[in-house]
Amino acid sequence: MKPWEANIRRVAPYVPGEQPKGEKLIKLNTNENPYPPSPGVKQALAQMDCDWFRKYPDPAATVLIKALSKTYGVEEDRIFVGVGSDDVIAVAFMTFFNSRKPILFPDVSYSFYKVWADLFRIPYETPALDDNFCIRKEDYYRENGGIIFPNPNAPTGLLMPLSEVEDIIAHNQESVVILDEAYIDFGGESGIKLTEKYDNLLVVQTFSKSRSMAGMRIGCAYGHPDLIRALNDVKYSYNSYTMNIPSLVLGAKALEDDKYFKETLDKIIYTREQAKIRLGELGFSFPDSMANFIFASHKERRAEEIYKALRDNNIYVRYFKQPRLDNHLRISIGTDEEMEALYIFLKEFL
Amino acid sequence: MKPWEANIRRVAPYVPGEQPKGEKLIKLNTNENPYPPSPGVKQALAQMDCDWFRKYPDPAATVLIKALSKTYGVEEDRIFVGVGSDDVIAVAFMTFFNSRKPILFPDVSYSFYKVWADLFRIPYETPALDDNFCIRKEDYYRENGGIIFPNPNAPTGLLMPLSEVEDIIAHNQESVVILDEAYIDFGGESGIKLTEKYDNLLVVQTFSKSRSMAGMRIGCAYGHPDLIRALNDVKYSYNSYTMNIPSLVLGAKALEDDKYFKETLDKIIYTREQAKIRLGELGFSFPDSMANFIFASHKERRAEEIYKALRDNNIYVRYFKQPRLDNHLRISIGTDEEMEALYIFLKEFL
Repeated sequence: MKPWEANIRRVAPYVPGEQPKGEKLIKLNTNENPYPPSPGVKQALAQMDCDWFRKYPDPAATVLIKALSKTYGVEEDRIFVGVGSDDVIAVAFMTFFNSRKPILFPDVSYSFYKVWADLFRIPYETPALDDNFCIRKEDYYRENGGIIFPNPNAPTGLLMPLSEVEDIIAHNQESVVILDEAYIDFGGESGIKLTEKYDNLLVVQTFSKSRSMAGMRIGCAYGHPDLIRALNDVKYSYNSYTMNIPSLVLGAKALEDDKYFKETLDKIIYTREQAKIRLGELGFSFPDSMANFIFASHKERRAEEIYKALRDNNIYVRYFKQPRLDNHLRISIGTDEEMEALYIFLKEFL
Repeated sequence: MKPWEANIRRVAPYVPGEQPKGEKLIKLNTNENPYPPSPGVKQALAQMDCDWFRKYPDPAATVLIKALSKTYGVEEDRIFVGVGSDDVIAVAFMTFFNSRKPILFPDVSYSFYKVWADLFRIPYETPALDDNFCIRKEDYYRENGGIIFPNPNAPTGLLMPLSEVEDIIAHNQESVVILDEAYIDFGGESGIKLTEKYDNLLVVQTFSKSRSMAGMRIGCAYGHPDLIRALNDVKYSYNSYTMNIPSLVLGAKALEDDKYFKETLDKIIYTREQAKIRLGELGFSFPDSMANFIFASHKERRAEEIYKALRDNNIYVRYFKQPRLDNHLRISIGTDEEMEALYIFLKEFL
């Protein structure tokens, strides 16, 4: 070993879903939106002047924060933005989780939580979901250095009623609680309004799923101005200019067309409910997802076998080779045509 | 104090240069390039399809890494990219500087080094530049947990000959040495080729200055594949998808037109050399900058006074209210027209 290697931070990194390329493939593996961003984005892109790029972007992300403030009725000093919700949550871990007590998050959940905790050397405990993949709120009624959980949860898609989310927050007013709402727009009720009641609550959302902007990397968080200020201090200590000019300009634009946004969501929700029927007929069972994916296992065939067969036929779904998850497939909701192709293949294969 | 506030990471964040808005102002305060990105960027922007944005970007940044590999003749597995060189260096601090021994960087240098060390709780020592603002290489011939310095240095603009840079590296083969070449294209010789000889050397560059892409946030680093792999592991543990689709596509494109790149650099270098003559005539003295800025103090008037007078007249330069720096102005090199307006104002004011 070379001497300097002794001081390298060793981590087991998160492995993102495959990004296969090709015209004919059906990509249902990374929970992307099958529909394009709102029409205003296209227009704003056409009007973008590349001469703007020679200057630094606005480090305060004003145009985007103002647009979020208007859209969600939240004051500007209660909003933080970053390079996807991954950046927002990573900064939040670094900012808020500095206790010696363990932070808490579910054993089956967004797998990045564990990775961040390892990266920043934060102690953690992972209360197990119950046999129906539900979060047991009572598991979070104990001393901790912070709490994070997604609602709806990933990769199960299960939504917790907002009253139960509030129970967890109400029991934990001595820690920062992060509510990760990456998938909330697909049928859930947001906890944003709870940030007015609980000044230790941070609600995180993303433009990657419901806003069709995964490729632009935009995430945001809502909370008490004290939380937002602390996040900004850490952000300005890491990289002042995280969001580039296209993400600021096009992100703000993506919020403008509420009608298009709702129509897109309705289409995805409709396709998801159809998928529950069709996958059920094919012998799959799954938690009742309120997200843009379904976490399904088959009564007869192993998930890994189905995953490989699908992949061999250019249909990509997500398979997690992990305890408790390794007989399930996470299938993102695509267009009706993409889903139809999935059902046809599965019917033949099974 | 609220109970959760005890666990907030407290940092004194970096304060970026002002980003004033307005048509008529002359902005010489953040070392931006006065010329637009290469013509291919404009074309690629016009061809960008906003439907691409619904999908995640390539987490491996392949298109950009291939373009850098081709441009600089460096193998792909020796290249790392990030959201500006600030992101690249922050990840490098987190990855490599985990010793209990202090890291070393000059007392007068890029002020973010201290901020990152504080953020990640890395011990550090800051050897003083000599009275001519030069780095004394012998100050770095002692035990340390890592070394970082810019060449040319900021905010002085002074270039160290590559042989002296190599002396520092050769004396420190037990630590990771980071050579920050944000301004190297304005007349210096890059240390990239030294990465083949020293596997503990990481050379960092940026698209923000010489490539006119500050607004896109693109930075890169060159080094031994072991260093690059360690950086990628930490990057994938923080945020897999840091660079968005426009930064990957347009960043790759920005590297294509070498003739335009060299012409732009020549113009800036010519204007800088003119500026040395003109500012000298006006009573300023300064280190002999090889960057795209001049770090100047006046024989009679205080820097702060000049700074304020300029600002009142819509000419922005950078003023650092810090020991050793507080009687200097850092003046970025603009177009000849912008510089002429600066000289005219200064002549009248002084």
